[in-house]
Amino acid sequence: MSEKKRVFSGMRPTGQLHLGHYFGVIANWLDLQAEFNCFFSVVDWHAMTTEYADPWKVQKMVPGLVRDWVSSGIDPEKCVIFQQSAVKEHAELSLLLSMITPLGWLERCPTYKEQREQLAAKDINTMGFLGYPVLMAADILLYFAHAVPVGQDQLPHLELAREIARRFNHLYETDLLIEPQDLLTAEAKLPGLDGRKMSKSYGNAIALSDPIEDILPKVRSMLTDKNRLRKSDPGDPSICNLFPYHKLLTDPAKLPEIEEGCRNASWGCVDCKKVLMESLEAFLTPMQERRAKIDDDTVRDILADGNKRAREFAQRSMAQIRDAIGYDI
Amino acid sequence: MSEKKRVFSGMRPTGQLHLGHYFGVIANWLDLQAEFNCFFSVVDWHAMTTEYADPWKVQKMVPGLVRDWVSSGIDPEKCVIFQQSAVKEHAELSLLLSMITPLGWLERCPTYKEQREQLAAKDINTMGFLGYPVLMAADILLYFAHAVPVGQDQLPHLELAREIARRFNHLYETDLLIEPQDLLTAEAKLPGLDGRKMSKSYGNAIALSDPIEDILPKVRSMLTDKNRLRKSDPGDPSICNLFPYHKLLTDPAKLPEIEEGCRNASWGCVDCKKVLMESLEAFLTPMQERRAKIDDDTVRDILADGNKRAREFAQRSMAQIRDAIGYDI
Repeated sequence: MSEKKRVFSGMRPTGQLHLGHYFGVIANWLDLQAEFNCFFSVVDWHAMTTEYADPWKVQKMVPGLVRDWVSSGIDPEKCVIFQQSAVKEHAELSLLLSMITPLGWLERCPTYKEQREQLAAKDINTMGFLGYPVLMAADILLYFAHAVPVGQDQLPHLELAREIARRFNHLYETDLLIEPQDLLTAEAKLPGLDGRKMSKSYGNAIALSDPIEDILPKVRSMLTDKNRLRKSDPGDPSICNLFPYHKLLTDPAKLPEIEEGCRNASWGCVDCKKVLMESLEAFLTPMQERRAKIDDDTVRDILADGNKRAREFAQRSMAQIRDAIGYDI
Repeated sequence: MSEKKRVFSGMRPTGQLHLGHYFGVIANWLDLQAEFNCFFSVVDWHAMTTEYADPWKVQKMVPGLVRDWVSSGIDPEKCVIFQQSAVKEHAELSLLLSMITPLGWLERCPTYKEQREQLAAKDINTMGFLGYPVLMAADILLYFAHAVPVGQDQLPHLELAREIARRFNHLYETDLLIEPQDLLTAEAKLPGLDGRKMSKSYGNAIALSDPIEDILPKVRSMLTDKNRLRKSDPGDPSICNLFPYHKLLTDPAKLPEIEEGCRNASWGCVDCKKVLMESLEAFLTPMQERRAKIDDDTVRDILADGNKRAREFAQRSMAQIRDAIGYDI
């Protein structure tokens, strides 16, 4: 690998990626893969923190996630695409870091109490759930990652990873562990079909692998400016749920016409949705064509190669980390 | 390996073994190694739960511990003598089991609060310290151990290991994990020189590797029946601190004479200590002669071989465990 700086990021294999994921995460990864040595991990141990009752379901999701990444343009030649649980060093470093991580740091973590309440029905009052930020710190520190793309809600976890790195370096008088910087990504560029956060569980998502014919009724159902009762009423794109979609998906040269047409009522919502449907088709079709070519064997090969490269890196770095504490046996 | 049942046991590398360890643990291991396939582990990750500030000190203790075991008669041909942190699967299984272990099980553990209070000065309010029973469960379950020799104080941890095994088997509809049974060992067969529990920190211990000439003043300082002020007073062996030593170390044929001599004042405490000194010398000398022959290279070879055998077993069993939850990637 060249001397580019390193980025680590991971996603849980919990279902099909949708446009919200694409514009929230993947689009950012596409920029990063040009500039950094990227380690993109399917974090299947993390998925176990909430899905421990059905680990088979987690594994069933893995190939689809890799397929979504690669068809979106994540390039297995440029990045290391791998599965967390295929690299034993994640568990090993997590165990080591747990020894120096005060419980208070975890219990005070703002997301911890919140999620425990949100997921009360899931019975996640487990050791694994409490320890998840330590495992996340291990994921990042194991690759000596310089930077991690995160949303606002993940900032406390990244700060914790930095605190753990600092504590390690301080305790063992070393500068081996790198404090990862955040590459903060803007939140929710693309709302769901109903204006809330896009989420499969809200039924307001367009999956990257949705058949085009299934998308049309979804677009038709989208809420627009609710003050515009008749086509002849002027509309306000700034409160219409379609407009963020146009901004991301439609040819920028067309945007002034659409915006103006809405405001002066020369365009109706049906016209506007027709254009959006064309934009979505133009955006998703090449992705879905690539996807169709990525069969199970290809996914297996991508992961086998990525796991091997991640393992080689992790074995080297774990040897250095153990050496730093005299555990180089 | 033959079809004998398996035993797992571990010791932290925290200092020289003394006679209290020998009669409390090692003598039991010597019996077990004839009957079981034994995995005896130097649990250096466990040592980190309290000694994380000085991991070098932990590692420095490892060769001495192996030397103590082997010179005591633990046979590296019969047993697998290995170092916990050399087998990554301990960390891996611990991480997996943490996902299904309710925090309440750990917080309720009777030893947890107690030790936290006892070791308040050590600042062990860490994730690693809370999670130590999960790591211990992983140690045992990884080798599908049928039995574990434990003292009374370790019973709650073994019960926790059984509970975790049951929960795993129940959640994943398998009978793969074996619920380890306890082989309860009697407590403190041999008190310290002053009658309290033998412990290096109390300064009341005879180490297995203590030079014989250093033991004589220790034996001379031992407390006997404090009601016996003059040699002509009859003594009571049942409240004399020497007698438990005689029972374990002196030729059983001589015991009636010693006991009788004490009771009828024909033996003085000095005579009694002289016999004990001879018994100690006869017991420790062959052990120390064996010890002198176990050089650093021998220890390295023993651990290299044991680590290899433990790793092979652990890799196979971890593959089965991952298979049982669909994580056989």
